Amino acid sequence: MQYHVNGRLVSAEDASVSVLDRGFRYGDAAFETLRAYGGAVFAWSAHRDRLERTCETLGMADAVPDDLALRIAETLDANDLEDAYVRVSITRGIQPGKLTPRTTVDPTVVVVVDSLPRGGRNGQSVWDDHATVQTVTTRRIPDSAIPVSAKTHNYLNGILARLELRRATTESYHPDEALLRDTDGYIAEGATSNLCFVDNGTLKTPQRGTILPGITREIVLDLAADESFPVETGRYTLDDIRSADEAFLTNTTWELRPVETVDGLDIGGGPITTLLSRLFDDLVEQYYSE
Amino acid sequence: MQYHVNGRLVSAEDASVSVLDRGFRYGDAAFETLRAYGGAVFAWSAHRDRLERTCETLGMADAVPDDLALRIAETLDANDLEDAYVRVSITRGIQPGKLTPRTTVDPTVVVVVDSLPRGGRNGQSVWDDHATVQTVTTRRIPDSAIPVSAKTHNYLNGILARLELRRATTESYHPDEALLRDTDGYIAEGATSNLCFVDNGTLKTPQRGTILPGITREIVLDLAADESFPVETGRYTLDDIRSADEAFLTNTTWELRPVETVDGLDIGGGPITTLLSRLFDDLVEQYYSE
Repeated sequence: MQYHVNGRLVSAEDASVSVLDRGFRYGDAAFETLRAYGGAVFAWSAHRDRLERTCETLGMADAVPDDLALRIAETLDANDLEDAYVRVSITRGIQPGKLTPRTTVDPTVVVVVDSLPRGGRNGQSVWDDHATVQTVTTRRIPDSAIPVSAKTHNYLNGILARLELRRATTESYHPDEALLRDTDGYIAEGATSNLCFVDNGTLKTPQRGTILPGITREIVLDLAADESFPVETGRYTLDDIRSADEAFLTNTTWELRPVETVDGLDIGGGPITTLLSRLFDDLVEQYYSE
Repeated sequence: MQYHVNGRLVSAEDASVSVLDRGFRYGDAAFETLRAYGGAVFAWSAHRDRLERTCETLGMADAVPDDLALRIAETLDANDLEDAYVRVSITRGIQPGKLTPRTTVDPTVVVVVDSLPRGGRNGQSVWDDHATVQTVTTRRIPDSAIPVSAKTHNYLNGILARLELRRATTESYHPDEALLRDTDGYIAEGATSNLCFVDNGTLKTPQRGTILPGITREIVLDLAADESFPVETGRYTLDDIRSADEAFLTNTTWELRPVETVDGLDIGGGPITTLLSRLFDDLVEQYYSE
């Protein structure tokens, strides 16, 4: 495998960053997880916009290189990948000693790829089973501490949430996504996913403010609106989820992933989840016919 | 300069970590900042204990190598350093794809050093001026989201706080430490320091629970108790700080650093700050006479 580091293709073994890089020292970096279908990056402009907004939040508004799409294409090409996972990281680069960032930024830009199965109508999900979701005591970092819409290398909040699943795991119970609540106790999101649920025919999902607003989540909400499904965003409690008719998680690699159980209680997918998944597959399918 | 990476001394230029290292991808790493005086690491066992506690919090209790002290000594030696800054990082190492950590950890261990002036009675402060402190709107990440006593590579909370200082800076006002409050509005700590202040002869400092309990802070509280100064830890407001008789910041490299102003209001050091600084210097001085 070859990755792209600071404008050059290098073998995976040689793909490294300095221990003085602020991305390593402090997680001082923005990232995006993308998916390529048939050689093209899905929802590229939405991902690029979010990456730029994250960099702006981090005070390095101009850090995203103009040729980033080209670097991704080169990396996919070098590895003969058409269906792939892509992770782009932009760090504040190497800056000596001080925590306070310098105003002049020479960013470190990393593109990592891996193969994924084909998506779309004849595609195969990256997940084997529906999600087993477990609520955790770890709370979502509030917006006042780190803006929630920034997607950064500071990912310990989600990792600590996932580590809690170890304690909940038994021989017959294997939770694989942790559901975090905000500091007020309302449902926020999964460690790497947004949660949507269906209640009496209405598609509901936690509102912006305590979640990373996922791009797949946005697309799904648009698809639902196009089908004239009632859509509602708001603040929801665990009871709201537990009494849902259907529930699913969204993220770039999972796309839509039905929720089998929450805290051991059956929820499952259903007709609206299935329809939205098909509509999403249709969107993806266009990437193969272009 | 030479650094220590995974058990080997390497030149600073070659000191790197894989882009797949979880320390880079997620800031999934513990660290300590230490100071060597006269060739020996100050308060080593306290730092080592905290590093182990952080690793335990991160679910990698055994990640700290037994020979860590030796690795630090080798790094200081290789660079002919007796008075030095030392940064030790322990990451969860390279693990493929998933956010959920594997139970088996092969940690990445990095030791970075840099020269510092001599400490102790005849020493020189690493800071030029007393601190100019500015409160910021960024709130300290609450304990419920990431345990506050863990010292990790997720340092964006402090970086965002420091970035706010840019906006407050004018030609005549140069704040150099950001003071964060907790999500309830009480004073927590600086971006890289703990705050202590003197009120009517009592030494006060925010209690554990919303702060990273600094090792220098602990030593200073012990020194104050030894001198029979009244010491109080509690929850304090910005008004408490603004009306303080003296105030100072503590961290490993700064030691005790008097606070000149908070939000532009004069505070300054004073007799208790000066006395505690001298007592701290006396402690450090022992490292040169051994």
